[in-house]
Amino acid sequence: MSDIRPVFYVSDGTGITVETIGHSLLTQFSGFHFQTERIPFVDDADKAHDAVRRIREAGERHLSRPIVIHSIVDPVVAAMLGESGALTLDVFAPFIDPMERELGTLRQSRVGQAHGLVDFETYHRRINAMNFALTHDDGIAVSYDEADLILVAVSRAGKTPTCVYLALHYGIRAANYPLTDQDLETDRLPARLRAYRRKLFGLTIDPERLAQIRQERRPNSRYAQLDTCKREVAAAEVMFQMERIPTLSTTHTSIEEIASKVMTTLGLRREMF
Amino acid sequence: MSDIRPVFYVSDGTGITVETIGHSLLTQFSGFHFQTERIPFVDDADKAHDAVRRIREAGERHLSRPIVIHSIVDPVVAAMLGESGALTLDVFAPFIDPMERELGTLRQSRVGQAHGLVDFETYHRRINAMNFALTHDDGIAVSYDEADLILVAVSRAGKTPTCVYLALHYGIRAANYPLTDQDLETDRLPARLRAYRRKLFGLTIDPERLAQIRQERRPNSRYAQLDTCKREVAAAEVMFQMERIPTLSTTHTSIEEIASKVMTTLGLRREMF
Repeated sequence: MSDIRPVFYVSDGTGITVETIGHSLLTQFSGFHFQTERIPFVDDADKAHDAVRRIREAGERHLSRPIVIHSIVDPVVAAMLGESGALTLDVFAPFIDPMERELGTLRQSRVGQAHGLVDFETYHRRINAMNFALTHDDGIAVSYDEADLILVAVSRAGKTPTCVYLALHYGIRAANYPLTDQDLETDRLPARLRAYRRKLFGLTIDPERLAQIRQERRPNSRYAQLDTCKREVAAAEVMFQMERIPTLSTTHTSIEEIASKVMTTLGLRREMF
Repeated sequence: MSDIRPVFYVSDGTGITVETIGHSLLTQFSGFHFQTERIPFVDDADKAHDAVRRIREAGERHLSRPIVIHSIVDPVVAAMLGESGALTLDVFAPFIDPMERELGTLRQSRVGQAHGLVDFETYHRRINAMNFALTHDDGIAVSYDEADLILVAVSRAGKTPTCVYLALHYGIRAANYPLTDQDLETDRLPARLRAYRRKLFGLTIDPERLAQIRQERRPNSRYAQLDTCKREVAAAEVMFQMERIPTLSTTHTSIEEIASKVMTTLGLRREMF
């Protein structure tokens, strides 16, 4: 018997919500070799038939019962998945009944809604935040007046991905301020940042990790030397402490976790797109 | 009675998974004014106590029973939420039992795992893909040899956010090719793209929408005129058709949906981060 356990995320929309839930669910069961596959846009019997065929084939190939995690609203399509022989989990089914009773109304059964049609206003806010993050990235001299927050850190500590994530998922205008050698000569905030104290959040990182990241980028440079990284990180940490800037280490932290902590700390409340 | 129905996403981790599920669930009940709030990192009794207080206050303020959607693993903390008086939905609970039976093992109850600790390799792949997207964005003359895919479209049709999304969530190296006036003079692929035919995906957009987006960016320019947009979009669509490049209209399509369709069409299979 193969060690691989096939898992399918099946959806009548993008499948992203289902994959998010499924991914979280699978992390709670370690020691298995899950082989995951997304089957999006399954919104009629033909596509369901194709999906069932793929699910069955995977089960036969790996001699292991597949797990299907799905969000199919159409009962006919959902029933077809159930006949695949897989363990079939409908991610919304358990919550529909209590929600319907609580709200006193039936759910609407349009498919693929969570990441489907978008209004112009929403799209626009999202794209504008993204453009903001990209044009306010790494040392480009621009005004921070319109920024919702400014991430401050030495080069390669995780500022850019966090800013882009915050823009893309929360429409937050997140700017970057990369600390230069000159900034790090004193333990005071760079002059440009002083007016924006309440928007600042500092990122720090383990110097060994930083050296490893910089080494990939500019091999054998002074920039990537462990000594350089140690000095820069230590100076930045002193500055954050002296100026009481909230900080977080990115060393073992995912982009999602950094983003979530930054929002919580600075009191930025936004709905996810 | 207020029209507002308070909804809380409570998690022992970032709360991002819970918010994703909750957001999808709420879109299935239209006509309500849900006011949502995320309460992340609720991993002990003190934080649970604070969360319960906030939930109760919101219920009293809006004279409306709150809805709590959570992923708390610790049974003590979960029970505290249950005593808030809110409708409490545990997003994983219904699936744990069938998964445990299927896999013949108990779930691990470490908290905050889905977006928690990350290994260097994973982080690195993600950041590298992101850097790739940013350095292969809009007309920068680079090689496409290492690209997993190349989005082709006229300016402002949605290439950049899609590339960044694919990098951030799937580690896909997505490059951009913006079609220039010169490219659009013929209905053949630009020479630079011919070697990469199987990596190409075309985006198109309604010319009115494009004009609206460009107008925000460069008001009253020729670039933003409806005539210009109509001509460019029509020429691009002819090229995609002549060259049999798969295409998608971004007009009413979310970034998630574009990303999902591009991956499916080009057969790019990656696990979500």
